[in-house]
Amino acid sequence: MKNKFVYLDNAATTPILAEAAAAITRADEELFFNPSAAYGQALEVKKRLDDASKKLLESLGAKGYGIVFSSGATEANNLIIQGGMKKNKQLIISAGEHPSVYECAKTLKNNGTEVLYAPLNKDGTTDLNWLRANVTSKTGLVSIMHVSNETGAINNLTEIVKIVKKVNSACIIHSDGAQAIGKTDVNLAASGVDAYTTSAHKFGGPKGVGALIVKNGIGVKPIVFGGGQQRGLRSGTENTAGILGMCKAAEIAIKGCLNNRLLYTEFKKIFLETLDKNRVEYKLNSCLNCVPGIVSLSFTGLKGEVLLHMLEEHDILIGTGSACSSKAPDNRTLKGMGRSNGEINGAIRISFGVCNTSAEVRQAAAILADAVKKLEDSK
Amino acid sequence: MKNKFVYLDNAATTPILAEAAAAITRADEELFFNPSAAYGQALEVKKRLDDASKKLLESLGAKGYGIVFSSGATEANNLIIQGGMKKNKQLIISAGEHPSVYECAKTLKNNGTEVLYAPLNKDGTTDLNWLRANVTSKTGLVSIMHVSNETGAINNLTEIVKIVKKVNSACIIHSDGAQAIGKTDVNLAASGVDAYTTSAHKFGGPKGVGALIVKNGIGVKPIVFGGGQQRGLRSGTENTAGILGMCKAAEIAIKGCLNNRLLYTEFKKIFLETLDKNRVEYKLNSCLNCVPGIVSLSFTGLKGEVLLHMLEEHDILIGTGSACSSKAPDNRTLKGMGRSNGEINGAIRISFGVCNTSAEVRQAAAILADAVKKLEDSK
Repeated sequence: MKNKFVYLDNAATTPILAEAAAAITRADEELFFNPSAAYGQALEVKKRLDDASKKLLESLGAKGYGIVFSSGATEANNLIIQGGMKKNKQLIISAGEHPSVYECAKTLKNNGTEVLYAPLNKDGTTDLNWLRANVTSKTGLVSIMHVSNETGAINNLTEIVKIVKKVNSACIIHSDGAQAIGKTDVNLAASGVDAYTTSAHKFGGPKGVGALIVKNGIGVKPIVFGGGQQRGLRSGTENTAGILGMCKAAEIAIKGCLNNRLLYTEFKKIFLETLDKNRVEYKLNSCLNCVPGIVSLSFTGLKGEVLLHMLEEHDILIGTGSACSSKAPDNRTLKGMGRSNGEINGAIRISFGVCNTSAEVRQAAAILADAVKKLEDSK
Repeated sequence: MKNKFVYLDNAATTPILAEAAAAITRADEELFFNPSAAYGQALEVKKRLDDASKKLLESLGAKGYGIVFSSGATEANNLIIQGGMKKNKQLIISAGEHPSVYECAKTLKNNGTEVLYAPLNKDGTTDLNWLRANVTSKTGLVSIMHVSNETGAINNLTEIVKIVKKVNSACIIHSDGAQAIGKTDVNLAASGVDAYTTSAHKFGGPKGVGALIVKNGIGVKPIVFGGGQQRGLRSGTENTAGILGMCKAAEIAIKGCLNNRLLYTEFKKIFLETLDKNRVEYKLNSCLNCVPGIVSLSFTGLKGEVLLHMLEEHDILIGTGSACSSKAPDNRTLKGMGRSNGEINGAIRISFGVCNTSAEVRQAAAILADAVKKLEDSK
């Protein structure tokens, strides 16, 4: 990627890592055979996919889990929610879930499933007291994201599992980890979650690939049917190049997680200090315990979208919130955190990546401060 | 691809075309932005995807159609069958459909949908007299593949549409075209089919990408829910690189279709003449009107799998049938064509690609003839 711009929208998607791109090219050249074919080259492809899966599971502390590769987090979330919910059971999701969980739940609700929405705390995490009070033997599946795509708030998976399993050991606990890998530690067996979603393009991998990681013995039914690949859970010729690209990116992202966290903590500090130095007023939506790579902040009375385009004029690219939706974000998350309409409309999201530099971050904050002042002055 | 082997299993999957791989690399470098983001670079990605879609539709004569990109043919087939079937309607598929149609229909059947199976003719095409006699106002969807993955038999889509629409103009007519693009002419508007499936990796594109092409106004409900991308029909961040890689491969495959057909006709001739010259007995499962790129033939009394591995020892890679299934093929197609068990067990599938040469094909046939004779002698 040539940096003709300052890219601060890494929570929307990341540039592909050179190592992941190389893994894709290599796979396309050497491993193009259909892994379901009968000759040795095809078996070798299958073996390479299995090896990469094992390594990925290991790096996520997922001993006792299996992996189902999908076309991305959206499909993985749909697979566990549509395929994991049993009849007449209740579904609990948090109020801040990504559309791929929220809209999937809505479809089930329209078809008669009872859906409860766990409210958010002011810091963006899910209200675990509410969860404690509401999970029952009727609950079939709980889906609470690991890291919020809007604020970076981290939910405590271990605590969620403890709360749910105490009341209902048969309940499936799923977490959408699309924003977690490379940004916070992930240890699935230690947390005890039954299913976990990942998305390659959020951590330097290719688009069009993700995975649902499922604890062995958890009953999930497929949502697409066909050749019976991936133990019947996800039919369709495996996307060898995409999967190997994703696994390579995951390896790098997980190894680099601590360093990146320190780097993004520094970036966040520089960013906010620059705003402070320029005496700009804002309200932070991302708490201290959020992943440092995602910074949501509100300029009450201004419009986030206007700020976005003012920064764009300086080749600085930011978000106003989740870009994973083709529709204008309805800011369920900020609303759920109790933010006012003024704060919601004035929200922007800065998200750091491995390509960013301190100088870029400082420059972006200074230009943002100027834009805010300009808008304030013109009021 | 370095030809350390003779790859004659192009119906299972094809090596990626250099131009498609280049399109992927370029997209990853320049167009990695999330197409749902609000800044100019993201809008440019969206535009490039739209432009590529339009070009693809044009090249398939699909005026008045829209495109839904998917993770491959399996998802596209599931989308139209699960998402296109209305309650209390009947589904008709041919007996020779790919598992992604057949197993999807089976799931609907298990859930109460009436499913009828159109039988095959001896030449592998679908019995249109049966269709004429059985389609009624109750029929909600007819799914008949364009080109058989097992034999290369071509179904006459125009005729199918005429038969169905005469009786039931509201019935959705779908065709799985996974094996058609680059192998036979495709003109969707002229044929009148309502929905058509493609798969990139069958014509030199990447794995993990396909599309459902749907006539405007045809009611299809999504099967995965989320951010509402692709007009709500297929949520999930668009796989930009994969889509552009697929469109580039389609462009080349469609432009090269006539030449390739001539080339494969020559290959088929060389292949069969070499067998004949070596006085080997076989029964052709691929008729004269099949696409020449797929040649299914049976050696009664021998085992196709044994032949496959004998050829493999000479670095010649062939199939025994559809490799799109992780399970052993049950040869629904050959059975449906009235082939005996001996013919089914002794079947192999040779499928040509743009990488093959006449010399390779001649060599493969000679080695196959030797293998057959060796097996016959050892009986």
